[in-house]
Amino acid sequence: MLARAGHDVRFLMRRDLAAVQARGLDIRSHRGDFRLDDVQCFASAEEIGAVDWVLCALKTTALGEARALIEPCLGPTTRVLALMNGLGVEEQLAGWIEPGRVFGGMAFVCLNRGEPGIVHHLDYGRLTIGHLGDEPRQLEELRALLAAAGIEVVAATRLRRARWEKLCWNIPFNGLSAAAGGVGTQTILEHPGLHAMAERAMREVVAVANEDLATFEHSDFLDEGAVVAAMFAQTETMGDYQTSMTIDYRLGQPLEVDAIIGAPLRRADELRIDVPTISALHALVDSADQRMRTGK
Amino acid sequence: MLARAGHDVRFLMRRDLAAVQARGLDIRSHRGDFRLDDVQCFASAEEIGAVDWVLCALKTTALGEARALIEPCLGPTTRVLALMNGLGVEEQLAGWIEPGRVFGGMAFVCLNRGEPGIVHHLDYGRLTIGHLGDEPRQLEELRALLAAAGIEVVAATRLRRARWEKLCWNIPFNGLSAAAGGVGTQTILEHPGLHAMAERAMREVVAVANEDLATFEHSDFLDEGAVVAAMFAQTETMGDYQTSMTIDYRLGQPLEVDAIIGAPLRRADELRIDVPTISALHALVDSADQRMRTGK
Repeated sequence: MLARAGHDVRFLMRRDLAAVQARGLDIRSHRGDFRLDDVQCFASAEEIGAVDWVLCALKTTALGEARALIEPCLGPTTRVLALMNGLGVEEQLAGWIEPGRVFGGMAFVCLNRGEPGIVHHLDYGRLTIGHLGDEPRQLEELRALLAAAGIEVVAATRLRRARWEKLCWNIPFNGLSAAAGGVGTQTILEHPGLHAMAERAMREVVAVANEDLATFEHSDFLDEGAVVAAMFAQTETMGDYQTSMTIDYRLGQPLEVDAIIGAPLRRADELRIDVPTISALHALVDSADQRMRTGK
Repeated sequence: MLARAGHDVRFLMRRDLAAVQARGLDIRSHRGDFRLDDVQCFASAEEIGAVDWVLCALKTTALGEARALIEPCLGPTTRVLALMNGLGVEEQLAGWIEPGRVFGGMAFVCLNRGEPGIVHHLDYGRLTIGHLGDEPRQLEELRALLAAAGIEVVAATRLRRARWEKLCWNIPFNGLSAAAGGVGTQTILEHPGLHAMAERAMREVVAVANEDLATFEHSDFLDEGAVVAAMFAQTETMGDYQTSMTIDYRLGQPLEVDAIIGAPLRRADELRIDVPTISALHALVDSADQRMRTGK
């Protein structure tokens, strides 16, 4: 959408590079299809060079590669938006990027990549953004940029709160979709035991989130009942949505288990909060991930 | 072993009938191989007729068939030993057999059936028996019969306590072996998260067991620490044992989820004990079982 709005957008591509060079980028969206015929796409970050903004949409399983991929694009004022899942991603980037230049983004969107050069945008499409230092002016600049391109964007006053809010969905639904053997959201909603387990996990996430936010002197806590009601109501409208973790599970690809479940679980341990359901999800998804990696 | 000791043992067989008629029964045991050349085996309970003892070793998933299979073998004094897993089996049999004639047995044994006519006895071999009414004389009669045939047998003063003690192993290890996608005990012991989840489930079982026993005015409670230490030490010696539930899972056969996890979970609910890990195991194994049955 930024490219469609006329911005100088340069894509770093792997699997889709040749297809997009040959045929452009095809977005099949429930909000209206569109295509980009002439896409600036590159095989390496060095070819892209320094930019104003880096939008990093790596899987968290590839977070270790982020520095080598991002550094060639950093100029003296470059800012970085981590459009990634999980807890602690921005903090890790801030280990080698000035923290004031690090932003986080959460995509509330159902999409899958299909054949090379085609993106299937199935449902939703909201972006919630935050700034690592929670500086309002910095955040407003990014919000305005994205909104002007037609993107549905919400600026979160508190990035960490927004991260936890997203985890309230991701931990139960991504976690269970993989733990139950690669199922969709409908299977979870329809099986009474899985439904109850998802709700229990969500309540545990809210408990950890609020304790965590308290340590950051945030006082805008999550309301457990409201979160559960809203998240389940939203999930009911998704059909049998295949979470990213279920898709990875079925394809035998690495699972984003550490960023989505591992980091929040470590935080719960630090805060000495008992989270049996999150622990169970982590154990099952992590062991599934290990078996896939080792081929056993 | 009863047949080897000279008792008139009549086997009701399905899959193995023709093979055993042709070649006898071949037991390959870590305690010494033996074979029975001339086996009395039958295709129906009607052909067997009334007997002194019925040894019922059905899977609990076939408990609904028990009555039709057992009734043709019942005479006026016939007693029935349920060599089955889970909680509540004897109580169900006592719905149509006089309770004083119902016994329960728990096999602490690692064995698999291989090709028809061959039994692989890999490890252990202890039978714990109890009487539904906990009558000592009745129990001693059965114990003596089995012991005289060379069977390692322990008479449990309290059948219900012995049932719970077995569940302390079966719920975590059978449950997790299926919930984690059909793994052996070694995978559970070696993965820190699965190991912790097994221990947590075991502690939850002990808590429910002791509350349940208290309602029956038993005072001989399970010692949580001792149970955990003993069960894990025993499991360490098993190698990568494939539980019955893991084998069923891999073969796509019905899982004994209700007797092993469902009935104890319902009891926990009745007693208002929070058992998040048992709930999680039940949800995951039950949904896996449903997907196998419906082919989804």
